[in-house]
Amino acid sequence: MLNGERLISRPLRWAMVGGGRTGQVGYKHRTGALRDNTAFELVAGAFDIDAERGKDFGVNIGVPENRCYSDYQTMFAEEANREDGIDVVSIATPNATHYDICKAALEADLHVICEKPLFFTTEEAQFIKELAEEKGKIVGVTYGFSGHQLLLQMRAMIEQGKIGDVRVVDLQYTHGFCATDEGDQKNDAQKWRVDPKVAGPSFVLGDLSTHTYYMSQLILPHMKIEKLLCDRQSFVGSRAPLEDNAHVLMHYDNGAVGTMWTSSINAGCMDAQRIRIVGSKASLEWWDSRPNELIYEIQGEPSQTLVRAMPYLDESCNRDERLGALHAEGLSESWANIYLKFAAAIDAKDRGDEETLKNLVYPDIDAGLEGVRWVENCVRSADQGAVWVDFE
Amino acid sequence: MLNGERLISRPLRWAMVGGGRTGQVGYKHRTGALRDNTAFELVAGAFDIDAERGKDFGVNIGVPENRCYSDYQTMFAEEANREDGIDVVSIATPNATHYDICKAALEADLHVICEKPLFFTTEEAQFIKELAEEKGKIVGVTYGFSGHQLLLQMRAMIEQGKIGDVRVVDLQYTHGFCATDEGDQKNDAQKWRVDPKVAGPSFVLGDLSTHTYYMSQLILPHMKIEKLLCDRQSFVGSRAPLEDNAHVLMHYDNGAVGTMWTSSINAGCMDAQRIRIVGSKASLEWWDSRPNELIYEIQGEPSQTLVRAMPYLDESCNRDERLGALHAEGLSESWANIYLKFAAAIDAKDRGDEETLKNLVYPDIDAGLEGVRWVENCVRSADQGAVWVDFE
Amino acid sequence: MLNGERLISRPLRWAMVGGGRTGQVGYKHRTGALRDNTAFELVAGAFDIDAERGKDFGVNIGVPENRCYSDYQTMFAEEANREDGIDVVSIATPNATHYDICKAALEADLHVICEKPLFFTTEEAQFIKELAEEKGKIVGVTYGFSGHQLLLQMRAMIEQGKIGDVRVVDLQYTHGFCATDEGDQKNDAQKWRVDPKVAGPSFVLGDLSTHTYYMSQLILPHMKIEKLLCDRQSFVGSRAPLEDNAHVLMHYDNGAVGTMWTSSINAGCMDAQRIRIVGSKASLEWWDSRPNELIYEIQGEPSQTLVRAMPYLDESCNRDERLGALHAEGLSESWANIYLKFAAAIDAKDRGDEETLKNLVYPDIDAGLEGVRWVENCVRSADQGAVWVDFE
Amino acid sequence: MLNGERLISRPLRWAMVGGGRTGQVGYKHRTGALRDNTAFELVAGAFDIDAERGKDFGVNIGVPENRCYSDYQTMFAEEANREDGIDVVSIATPNATHYDICKAALEADLHVICEKPLFFTTEEAQFIKELAEEKGKIVGVTYGFSGHQLLLQMRAMIEQGKIGDVRVVDLQYTHGFCATDEGDQKNDAQKWRVDPKVAGPSFVLGDLSTHTYYMSQLILPHMKIEKLLCDRQSFVGSRAPLEDNAHVLMHYDNGAVGTMWTSSINAGCMDAQRIRIVGSKASLEWWDSRPNELIYEIQGEPSQTLVRAMPYLDESCNRDERLGALHAEGLSESWANIYLKFAAAIDAKDRGDEETLKNLVYPDIDAGLEGVRWVENCVRSADQGAVWVDFE
Repeated sequence: MLNGERLISRPLRWAMVGGGRTGQVGYKHRTGALRDNTAFELVAGAFDIDAERGKDFGVNIGVPENRCYSDYQTMFAEEANREDGIDVVSIATPNATHYDICKAALEADLHVICEKPLFFTTEEAQFIKELAEEKGKIVGVTYGFSGHQLLLQMRAMIEQGKIGDVRVVDLQYTHGFCATDEGDQKNDAQKWRVDPKVAGPSFVLGDLSTHTYYMSQLILPHMKIEKLLCDRQSFVGSRAPLEDNAHVLMHYDNGAVGTMWTSSINAGCMDAQRIRIVGSKASLEWWDSRPNELIYEIQGEPSQTLVRAMPYLDESCNRDERLGALHAEGLSESWANIYLKFAAAIDAKDRGDEETLKNLVYPDIDAGLEGVRWVENCVRSADQGAVWVDFE
Repeated sequence: MLNGERLISRPLRWAMVGGGRTGQVGYKHRTGALRDNTAFELVAGAFDIDAERGKDFGVNIGVPENRCYSDYQTMFAEEANREDGIDVVSIATPNATHYDICKAALEADLHVICEKPLFFTTEEAQFIKELAEEKGKIVGVTYGFSGHQLLLQMRAMIEQGKIGDVRVVDLQYTHGFCATDEGDQKNDAQKWRVDPKVAGPSFVLGDLSTHTYYMSQLILPHMKIEKLLCDRQSFVGSRAPLEDNAHVLMHYDNGAVGTMWTSSINAGCMDAQRIRIVGSKASLEWWDSRPNELIYEIQGEPSQTLVRAMPYLDESCNRDERLGALHAEGLSESWANIYLKFAAAIDAKDRGDEETLKNLVYPDIDAGLEGVRWVENCVRSADQGAVWVDFE
Repeated sequence: MLNGERLISRPLRWAMVGGGRTGQVGYKHRTGALRDNTAFELVAGAFDIDAERGKDFGVNIGVPENRCYSDYQTMFAEEANREDGIDVVSIATPNATHYDICKAALEADLHVICEKPLFFTTEEAQFIKELAEEKGKIVGVTYGFSGHQLLLQMRAMIEQGKIGDVRVVDLQYTHGFCATDEGDQKNDAQKWRVDPKVAGPSFVLGDLSTHTYYMSQLILPHMKIEKLLCDRQSFVGSRAPLEDNAHVLMHYDNGAVGTMWTSSINAGCMDAQRIRIVGSKASLEWWDSRPNELIYEIQGEPSQTLVRAMPYLDESCNRDERLGALHAEGLSESWANIYLKFAAAIDAKDRGDEETLKNLVYPDIDAGLEGVRWVENCVRSADQGAVWVDFE
Repeated sequence: MLNGERLISRPLRWAMVGGGRTGQVGYKHRTGALRDNTAFELVAGAFDIDAERGKDFGVNIGVPENRCYSDYQTMFAEEANREDGIDVVSIATPNATHYDICKAALEADLHVICEKPLFFTTEEAQFIKELAEEKGKIVGVTYGFSGHQLLLQMRAMIEQGKIGDVRVVDLQYTHGFCATDEGDQKNDAQKWRVDPKVAGPSFVLGDLSTHTYYMSQLILPHMKIEKLLCDRQSFVGSRAPLEDNAHVLMHYDNGAVGTMWTSSINAGCMDAQRIRIVGSKASLEWWDSRPNELIYEIQGEPSQTLVRAMPYLDESCNRDERLGALHAEGLSESWANIYLKFAAAIDAKDRGDEETLKNLVYPDIDAGLEGVRWVENCVRSADQGAVWVDFE
């Protein structure tokens, strides 16, 4: 059980680009990274496009004023000159800027942690992957829900044959917020997400479904999509040409089929992500609104509810436990788990410990690249009229 | 509130074809029809392909021995000669026999109530529809779940604009029973369902999804499918060429989209049917495993749970109420509601009361025909490789 | 699995006292008794204090006009003179009349089925018990919720040691209907329940908690209350001196403790009855609003949900199954199960088959007497200031 | 919405007594206090009865080695000599030690945050209250679940009359862990809790129900208990004379009644705390296993589920929001909220800002004293044979 004690040689010196006062996601990064102050220390930042506001904010969360920078270029340059300069930077800016900042960070010899969807194209992702390898750096992607422990329980149970052969993968990430013409425009944190120039080739496919798609890969590492079909719509007119609703059908290499429903027009829905894996003997189901419960339905037997923190769970799941049974964990623990694994990966990379790296399960550059590929294939299918396309 | 008092001129003299001791569905018909003994009286039957067993069974449920017939042909002929001969017959036999028995019944001047899926082709359904019109008879179809009162609540609320414009129709009828090679073959009531000669061109699409599709039409009478795409699989090998899993995407004439998941390989799933209707303002969701609850989720407001029998429900819903608040109703009430409407329709038809007929909402020949059309279109799409087809 | 076939020598000729058009409970009796028309036939009745309305009603549910009587005395006298006279009568009248009608029925050599709470005093119940024995007749009590199959599953699992030693019995029957000064008075079916002259010495203790108390005895036949303490209140002033809320603490002879909360002021509560039995190894929990689900929580293991109709349930539970898996049963099946057992008991009694009688589990005169005793002890405790009293 | 920015003049210098590697609660304190590093900084500690282990632990969570002390006496003395000495200390040691450490801390001019149950007697609590007043210091009590935001929503809604007059208060804190003779003894974190010398006069009443009792006071600040009755048992023999199960009945000064069930033998129960407040118009219900949902049941209307972070919630509730809608919060946010209020109280106290102090709702010395009083009264009633006692 995790109790906050240091697990790596020393806390990493960490900075953020973006994630300032006006957005919501920056706080999640800090909550995750700084959970125990033994994996990361926040020492610098270029928190805001408005440099003054960014500095005011940085100081107010305890960053030394002289390390609150006006932009990421300056930060990377200045920090490179310090003996105690930053080791790693998190990028929590709108999608269109991810690629340039990632590239600059790697070129400045920094490890990188970046928001999803990583980039606009797989070419960009492939380039960054190669650059990271060349530089010997880690690129982590903040699929922030993927740190929920029970996902590892699902992975372990499926690996152990507890549900038999996987037949159907049923994925959902939907909600109904901002689903009016004015909805997006009134909300600064939302507005850019429906602007193709900033958001890229998709809205909900990139913004929402990449999370769930990654989580499905985490649970089902042995399965690959062979072809898919994506049907997308823009119900709120002002979001066109970007979709606010999409249904995807998938065929996997092992004969399984899958569906993804992603939407920001699912009015009133407060259970954003639902993942159901159907096997030949049993099914597993998990919802992100009740992250402490995992439903295990064996055909012909009573349905079971597995609860986080219980000794009957797999060791790979309980390894991330913090609060103990009867004590609800939430999204902040999920982020903390991911950031702790980023730290472990960075530490291992720096020490050249490939064995540790190989065994770490976390959203790395491949996960980021795969998310971009997912969006690309969905968009390609949709744009041809919702036809089947090979997953390339 | 219904209390069993007679609502029509006299109870109808009723017979069954099939529905004997070895199947499960016959008891549901009797439970529905005979709920209060004021709408139907069971006076005759050809209950079983095994005539002796059928007679023994008939006597044991109170049918006079001389009106327990060895086959439907004999029954229709003999009953026609009685002054107190049957008015109406229910057909609860395997799919392949529905058409011939329906035709014979109408030709014998009987009203007909028939199991779903009604027939194998829309041509057959069209023919029977015309024959029924010519004969002045009712043909009802036992979509047995469609009598749940809260479906009428959904219909009323959508009609009243309580969810805004319908955007997404999310349908599901799945379970995991018999999902092994031996599963179907060991079970007599199941075996014929996966034999194309008896079951027709589909397994779960016809056996399961026709129910849910009809219920969606009951809820959304103003919406028509324009095109659909159906992807189907046979996970249990012995079921091929019939599917045991299918995903359907639909486009409606009002711009809404829909999905149907129907399956008999959804291992461990005990919530067979789920219906979610997403509108521009709110959503409605209902599960047949908890038929007394309706979820109403208005975007930006607390989610509501409407409970059967409460005064706040629409009058069209509460009209079918029997047991009162705090008293769970189940599938037997759903069947009773449908059969009561069949009786009302037959009574009105016999009286020439077209006004009453026009206002009765129940699964009639058009609903049966539409179910056959649904299966035909799904199969047509699937057989071309899961492509989009116009809904014809 | 029950399919409606006759299980006894012939359907019993059955009459009702009360249960006419203006109340709600009569329909439940008829729904239960006439479920399959093979256990009971409704042939006579004195349905209403208003004789004309009663006759009109009787004819309208199919009773011959000349057997619709103006009062029970006449009915018992006239039916005694018929060769096909009634075998058994159900009493569905306000509490204050139960004793006289029961006595008259037994004296007329009829089997009796009576509403709860049976009588006002244990002396009355004891007298009727002796009279029934003398007459060789059955007295059944309509604890109408006690026919839910999963209660027998609880009984079997506890008998089999599946929860270990019982430690806590947690009972609840609460709702919030009519909980205003005007609430009871506006509602004819409710009004008499808060009038001590008609209802007896209690309101919710008798009207509600006797159900749940009987169900706890059905589940835990080996446990007896040794002492209890009852604290009762009249929150709605016009109900005083009768209580509309009570909490009872119980000590059992095996060292277990228990609680009962019964109330008609639990505003908004739609899950009327909840029963939780805590053992040294596991707990069982069942709610009457979701009667098809039984929760089985083993300490240190995943929680299980057992679902009605599944093969893994105990044979004693599945014996009452009618509709099959995935098909919700409700309160009407519970009543049907009880009435079917009344029929079996009467049939066995008439045949002198004591072996069958001994093995039948149903709410008999002892169950009725025990319910009266429960109320008496609760009231005695409450009236002394909510003190502990020995259960006498 | 909280985003981690500093809300007080400077982060407080904070130390812990206890809370080291072998217990579970220390991590919760650190998780709460250090959430954003802008309210508290952990600078010293006497973390363990085993001084070496305590030092090793302290260093490993980032405390300077020379400020990892062997015992609290040394720590208070040494820190008093530092210019940057600690401002506040948290006490996370077994119950029997709370009083001495609290007293010493106040005498060393420190603010204090202490685990519950605060002390063994109300006299002790009264003494500490007076000492704190004299010293001008804050004493906070870590009722760690009481920071869940929806409790403030309940408080606000009841204050606003949304449920009418409160009639019934239904409280529960139960679980089934360690409920065997060996259960407690094998578990170091559990063992002392059933030893009267260390735990005090009660086990579950003090260890569990003081939480829920405080939360009920937070929700219902206007209501006082007038008398209560407590019935307690020791089902696991080795726990005697301390109880592992208790039922309490309460009468409040406004005519309401209440119940508390607290237990560590509720086998399999994973929903530890449940709070239901019944009013004359509606009820509110909240469970700590699903802390993001609040059930609002208005009699005669659809039941509502209010979800954390939604704009329709009261401002007093949303003020503590951190992660935003669709993002599950858990127990760590609850602790963070409480610690943030401790910081605000300390900051206000130090600044002499009585206005702020008066408006802060958090578990202060009065809440701690009230918890001790609750246990005292329960034990007094139980020890006299579960009789009614005036709440003194």
